[in-house]
Amino acid sequence: MLDQSPTLPFVWPVRVYYEDTDAGGVVYHSRYLNFMERARTEWLRAAGIEQDQLRKQQGLIFAVSKAALEYRAPARFNEQLLVEISAVSARRVTMNLQQKIINAADQRLLCLAEIQIACVDSRQLRPRAIPQYVLELV
Amino acid sequence: MLDQSPTLPFVWPVRVYYEDTDAGGVVYHSRYLNFMERARTEWLRAAGIEQDQLRKQQGLIFAVSKAALEYRAPARFNEQLLVEISAVSARRVTMNLQQKIINAADQRLLCLAEIQIACVDSRQLRPRAIPQYVLELV
Amino acid sequence: MLDQSPTLPFVWPVRVYYEDTDAGGVVYHSRYLNFMERARTEWLRAAGIEQDQLRKQQGLIFAVSKAALEYRAPARFNEQLLVEISAVSARRVTMNLQQKIINAADQRLLCLAEIQIACVDSRQLRPRAIPQYVLELV
Amino acid sequence: MLDQSPTLPFVWPVRVYYEDTDAGGVVYHSRYLNFMERARTEWLRAAGIEQDQLRKQQGLIFAVSKAALEYRAPARFNEQLLVEISAVSARRVTMNLQQKIINAADQRLLCLAEIQIACVDSRQLRPRAIPQYVLELV
Repeated sequence: MLDQSPTLPFVWPVRVYYEDTDAGGVVYHSRYLNFMERARTEWLRAAGIEQDQLRKQQGLIFAVSKAALEYRAPARFNEQLLVEISAVSARRVTMNLQQKIINAADQRLLCLAEIQIACVDSRQLRPRAIPQYVLELV
Repeated sequence: MLDQSPTLPFVWPVRVYYEDTDAGGVVYHSRYLNFMERARTEWLRAAGIEQDQLRKQQGLIFAVSKAALEYRAPARFNEQLLVEISAVSARRVTMNLQQKIINAADQRLLCLAEIQIACVDSRQLRPRAIPQYVLELV
Repeated sequence: MLDQSPTLPFVWPVRVYYEDTDAGGVVYHSRYLNFMERARTEWLRAAGIEQDQLRKQQGLIFAVSKAALEYRAPARFNEQLLVEISAVSARRVTMNLQQKIINAADQRLLCLAEIQIACVDSRQLRPRAIPQYVLELV
Repeated sequence: MLDQSPTLPFVWPVRVYYEDTDAGGVVYHSRYLNFMERARTEWLRAAGIEQDQLRKQQGLIFAVSKAALEYRAPARFNEQLLVEISAVSARRVTMNLQQKIINAADQRLLCLAEIQIACVDSRQLRPRAIPQYVLELV
């Protein structure tokens, strides 16, 4: 079960550009994963964690190890979206995040996701414990 | 439960180019969804179904409505991958596919996915019954 | 020759995420075109022009008809970039823009581009005159 | 001026999938650069040059240093394209390639490009001489 941290939900705005859409007229389904990673990056940054530093100084990166997405409604060109991190739970090596993508204009839920992130070393990509200060910050 | 069709597994080769990788040195996690859609498109084509014709003639498109991915091992630049459709089950509006991404050189399983595709009309993106001839072909 | 409009340069910030990078450790070369289009979209928005409205109401879209890029220095993961529109000239059907991508931290020029945009109708993609109010706004 | 090598033109087929298109119904303009890089990668491979080996063994990568593109006609979802390398000239550090993207069905020229590739070391991305055996092979 996911804990509700006092700093959550974290919300990051994303605008839909042509690059994000496909010939069906809507945002291409894999792009939601990109949007969700932008939000996770900014959420870590807001907590003081810069991932390029984490990599240089500790040789650690976060990699997506599982993702489950439900597409509820399409997003379209030029729409303003909100990418939300609504819940986080952490174990030794992995974090589970619940993420939502919402249409900013009418608050409709467009996409609901459970994302599992694993902490791995940047060379071998082998599992490593999430640093204690990261756990405390998030 | 997924049925095992006589035409499955369907396998589509994909080469990893720089565009598919990220600064972690591995294929970016959302790209696997792109690779899986290429395989589904070619699987439909192999069955005689051209999606541009399906859209023009019947106003129908297939949209991903759910996706669940497990990332088991990374793929790297220049590797040859095999994208497999190993099982398919269909209902009136949706199809569920089991898809795998495999390293062609050593047959390691890199990514395992369950993808749900919904048949929708191309304008409103409302659910529509999958045409009977599509169900028979797949 | 390009005119220097009083509203220029227009600057739009872009953060480099993993999705933008490749296994060489730097931003993938075609992504700069994506960043430049984001800046053009926001520049038009700042001038009161929403491209989804332009399409719905007038059946017009802007399409890139020429692009010339010089890559001077690489951008890397997590860097903050500034995408600049430094000069614009317009003819009946096309606009020429000079765009720059700059590292926000040290102001280094990373990429210099000349982009030609053509106004086309959204169905046939045939050349059409740029609306007068667009010319006045930009 | 570009030399006409006996091994040219090199042609690589590319199929247009949904991921390549945008809400304008056509291939997104930056994707042509991706397609052209796929063709260059396969052209080097056909000459016996594997870029992952070049990097591991010699610490060298090829980076795009200039690109000039003319978009003549749009490509659409599901179309079969041919990506051509029609001419190559080499200097000590850079290669200039003329590349074309053609609609396979009717041979229409869709995009014409001049691409400059620089040989750089994989760590600092500083210019390095193209290895002699690469020059001989291409």
